[in-house]
Amino acid sequence: MHRANNFNAGPSALPQEVLERVQAELLDFQGTGMSVMELSHRSKTYEAIHFQAMDRLRRLFGLSADYEILFLQGGASTQFSMLPMNFLGNGEQAGYVLTGSWSEKAVAEAKRFGHIAVADEAKQSGYTTIPSHFETAIVQGSAYVHLTTNNTIYGTQWHELPETKGVPRLVADMSSDILSRTFPINEFDLVYAGAQKNLGPSGVTVVIVRKNWLSEAKHDVPTMLSYQTHADKSSLYNTPPTFAIYMMNLVLEWIEDQGGLSALEDKNRQKAALIYDAIDEFDIYQGHATKSARSNMNVTFRLGTDELSKTFLQGVEEKGFVGVKGHRSVGGCRVSLYNAVPLESASRFADFMREFARTH
Amino acid sequence: MHRANNFNAGPSALPQEVLERVQAELLDFQGTGMSVMELSHRSKTYEAIHFQAMDRLRRLFGLSADYEILFLQGGASTQFSMLPMNFLGNGEQAGYVLTGSWSEKAVAEAKRFGHIAVADEAKQSGYTTIPSHFETAIVQGSAYVHLTTNNTIYGTQWHELPETKGVPRLVADMSSDILSRTFPINEFDLVYAGAQKNLGPSGVTVVIVRKNWLSEAKHDVPTMLSYQTHADKSSLYNTPPTFAIYMMNLVLEWIEDQGGLSALEDKNRQKAALIYDAIDEFDIYQGHATKSARSNMNVTFRLGTDELSKTFLQGVEEKGFVGVKGHRSVGGCRVSLYNAVPLESASRFADFMREFARTH
Repeated sequence: MHRANNFNAGPSALPQEVLERVQAELLDFQGTGMSVMELSHRSKTYEAIHFQAMDRLRRLFGLSADYEILFLQGGASTQFSMLPMNFLGNGEQAGYVLTGSWSEKAVAEAKRFGHIAVADEAKQSGYTTIPSHFETAIVQGSAYVHLTTNNTIYGTQWHELPETKGVPRLVADMSSDILSRTFPINEFDLVYAGAQKNLGPSGVTVVIVRKNWLSEAKHDVPTMLSYQTHADKSSLYNTPPTFAIYMMNLVLEWIEDQGGLSALEDKNRQKAALIYDAIDEFDIYQGHATKSARSNMNVTFRLGTDELSKTFLQGVEEKGFVGVKGHRSVGGCRVSLYNAVPLESASRFADFMREFARTH
Repeated sequence: MHRANNFNAGPSALPQEVLERVQAELLDFQGTGMSVMELSHRSKTYEAIHFQAMDRLRRLFGLSADYEILFLQGGASTQFSMLPMNFLGNGEQAGYVLTGSWSEKAVAEAKRFGHIAVADEAKQSGYTTIPSHFETAIVQGSAYVHLTTNNTIYGTQWHELPETKGVPRLVADMSSDILSRTFPINEFDLVYAGAQKNLGPSGVTVVIVRKNWLSEAKHDVPTMLSYQTHADKSSLYNTPPTFAIYMMNLVLEWIEDQGGLSALEDKNRQKAALIYDAIDEFDIYQGHATKSARSNMNVTFRLGTDELSKTFLQGVEEKGFVGVKGHRSVGGCRVSLYNAVPLESASRFADFMREFARTH
């Protein structure tokens, strides 16, 4: 069977084993005579999937009972509003660390609800770096501090969590690296992620929130935009995106089968190193991120001239590599290496980069 | 292959032909070497699906260019807030016709945003009826009037649209009968529907809005909750639920192949008549709705005693009929007969009802 070398930034590659299982049981889920999509979300059969996915997330993250896990809709973009709507009172302040386009969007939404203090050190660098500490200006007097763990567009990633002493509540948008590595989630009060990079297809958003913070959330929030609504009903307040949650559950099972987060972290580092090594080996390639801030999820680079970039991307396409064109807002090239991208795809791409460099 | 007689209220039965096609192309969509779920939402291949689904909806409804079609997330429950957030200013009034639990929930959310006038004639009847006119009290001075075209829980449905003269803007929640019959959509300024009954799997919500009303929408709305955001970007502002939209596109194609809305209306009326005839034939069954308000989507009835209902539901389960237990808030029995439920399933169920009545 023909499988593309899929480097899409999201929606993105899914594990082939998972897709094969979905295909096999698509018309008859566990002998019910129904597709999983045709099950009532109030049925025991669907509920087993729903709660299994929550249990797996809890196990993989090593989450204590202090946290609620929610399955929502609307992507991280909806969380940009929902977070301050629930946790930022009128006249209150929150601190945001700017590390790329998505954190800028998060700030723009949060400004509708309160005063936002921003740390723009990374922005000053052209989004090539990641800050090493939380500036006092964003911590002091803030209801929470928000960061973006991985920056899909610029290809930077937080590798060390700065000292969090004094940070009241810590929030992370983990949309593009959730479950791709071990992570000190117990330092955080809320994390959120759209599923379509490391967790499954688009259409479901995971929110993990510390219960003692949730209990302080605002009450005058529209029902569907209140985290408490979904926590109270185990994310079954209304019809959830059942197929997306079913797929996520299978992807989580696959992650367990791969050996969990530290095994995936090793594999993801290995894949990224193949591409970064090629970038470092040849002057023709210029990586965007400074080395210490390099993302293991999205490798971003340019070639010497726009003409050369164009020739490179043509070759990439001819060889059947998918999704390598950089985000429209920054140009250049981007290779996304989420969990489900096989090592062989990264290896083939690195070979292509070497061959291209030698012949151009 | 074993296919259940699936009368789930939603998520619900999908056309077998559609599921077979999804299964066949699940790992390799149109020779791309990728599942449709692995395509970028910015790719030409995905965009073709996205816009084909919009075109099909436009054709099936006979919609003029005066309307925008949006693909959103969060279900009708999110629309309960989003509608007034966009169209009801502080201090303004909207009129809501109460015809069941869902319209009550819509009212509860709308009350957060403005003054809500309700027509409660149907509520007074125990939700067995549908009003024949719009009361002046909900029309006069209202920014819009809201109704629920089909009431899933009580099994009632609007069969005639009342005189709309004087109604400023008309809005319908069509979650449970969209595209199940011909419909005077040009009388409406906004309609919305979760997909999981007649359009596809759960996870996508269709909104159709008249452009000249959209241009009057409020601007101080969070980005993802503003209809204009999604209209401006053809519902590609952020990552849409691509698989759910792909499925919807296939279901819409299937609806076209069935002969469109009037053909489906005939078939749906025929299916419902089979069950209503059995209800009317035997005293053991008591239909909930008055005859003129009977839904062709959800047939609701009770048996003489709770004991008899229990025996009936046991028999139903033994025979492999799925989803017949009434909604937990009202009890009794409910048979949901959305587009994809085959005539044979309805016919088998009617036979069972006859046999049960003769032997009990």
